[in-house]
Amino acid sequence: MNFTRRLRAIQRKNRSLVCVGLDSDPAKLPVSLRGTPDAVVEFNRRIIEATKDLVCAYKVNLAFTESLGEDAWPVLQRTLRCIPGEIITIGDAKRGDIGNSSAMYAKVLLELHRFDATTVSPYMGFDSVAPFLARPDRGAFILAVTSNPGARDFQYLTVRGHPLYETVVRTVRTWNTKKNCGLVVGATRPKELQRVRALAPDLPLLIPGIGAQGGDLESAVRYGCDRRGELAIINASRSVLYASQGDDFAAAARAGALTLKDEINRYRREFFRKRL
Amino acid sequence: MNFTRRLRAIQRKNRSLVCVGLDSDPAKLPVSLRGTPDAVVEFNRRIIEATKDLVCAYKVNLAFTESLGEDAWPVLQRTLRCIPGEIITIGDAKRGDIGNSSAMYAKVLLELHRFDATTVSPYMGFDSVAPFLARPDRGAFILAVTSNPGARDFQYLTVRGHPLYETVVRTVRTWNTKKNCGLVVGATRPKELQRVRALAPDLPLLIPGIGAQGGDLESAVRYGCDRRGELAIINASRSVLYASQGDDFAAAARAGALTLKDEINRYRREFFRKRL
Repeated sequence: MNFTRRLRAIQRKNRSLVCVGLDSDPAKLPVSLRGTPDAVVEFNRRIIEATKDLVCAYKVNLAFTESLGEDAWPVLQRTLRCIPGEIITIGDAKRGDIGNSSAMYAKVLLELHRFDATTVSPYMGFDSVAPFLARPDRGAFILAVTSNPGARDFQYLTVRGHPLYETVVRTVRTWNTKKNCGLVVGATRPKELQRVRALAPDLPLLIPGIGAQGGDLESAVRYGCDRRGELAIINASRSVLYASQGDDFAAAARAGALTLKDEINRYRREFFRKRL
Repeated sequence: MNFTRRLRAIQRKNRSLVCVGLDSDPAKLPVSLRGTPDAVVEFNRRIIEATKDLVCAYKVNLAFTESLGEDAWPVLQRTLRCIPGEIITIGDAKRGDIGNSSAMYAKVLLELHRFDATTVSPYMGFDSVAPFLARPDRGAFILAVTSNPGARDFQYLTVRGHPLYETVVRTVRTWNTKKNCGLVVGATRPKELQRVRALAPDLPLLIPGIGAQGGDLESAVRYGCDRRGELAIINASRSVLYASQGDDFAAAARAGALTLKDEINRYRREFFRKRL
């Protein structure tokens, strides 16, 4: 099954567009777990247990795992083993290198860690992204419009009368021969999100930036979904992971994910007449 | 001492613009080392021993180390400990993420691994690069024109009448307040290299792509150096690492690095009237 269909399948099964970002920072774990050797794995395991019927995807930010140094590899491997196979796992690594090296990054993320999808930077062009798109069942989300202030530096430069990110979107569409390309668009950019969805009606969109970064949920759903009210992946990290600092963190995470799922589904019913 | 001055100092001391890329692939190691648990570290150690008076820098491609899985972290740490402190170490990781995550990547590369410099992707703009530029003694090489075919997809798009990479170069110049910004320009792009050097007369340029990728050494020196015949860092990987497949690999690597250094210096004498 190609990546886009796999995503649709789990979004339908769990009736959810929610992606939980497992950006687990050892310094922010509940007091009861802190300092134990397996704290991050145990934290992730309990977050996953508590939310796995409420999400379509989990996203792991490699910057967070890599900061664990020597423990990074086993923590990541053990975390990923806790996630049911039908749920999409996204290795948020924003890699991009020339062919040979990109092939190695792809191997690490897609074969060794067995992520279902990754995030990649477009700057180096097609051959830098191709290894991440080699398997139809594995996806790559190419950065289009990011949620940070620096997005303005290059992504909005005018190219042929349109902002650069539009050229990125149009180009990525031509790469989508295996139905496994997606795009990253920050929830802090509703106007751009609407434009990207218009240019790429069939592509999965990974949408970070709601919650702590201030992105607007209503526009993320309204403009991020395809015409069937699907294919938007709305990521929340801190608001779910750290919903409580106490021993009830897993229950609080579940409540946070459920609220988000319900709120998203309310908008899907409103804007897409979706029965959910 | 700021990064640019540190680079000049070692280029003068070793009279060399050569950077050896430690892209050590376990499958390509000499037969006598293959299969031993510390093979990659031992290989790197002997390459470094054999070349450290002939180079200004070593570059480690993180794609190669990461492909070692669980061993990646200790192999990298032990390799870096073999490199004398005055020689510039470049973590070629092409990272780029939003502020928080970029800060973590910078911490991993610059603090935990203690690289002197990194490579970073420009697409996400200033705040994604800033953590790599926080310390004046540590540098960041921002991708400008890459050596791969996909470079054409976005880097050459016309922005304000010029190719996009020129805007990247002009923008990076404004980021260079601590004299620690550099740029990556592929040796396969001599015309663009000349243009970049004209736009950024004082920035270190990391120039990969000679040798296996077919870049031209003469233009790399002629157009890559600043007006003093310095600040170009000319990378060679395979032609040095795998100069011999036998037990004489270290001696062969030394001969390869020496030939390259001498050839570069011949051009520096010719084009910059350099006494070397």
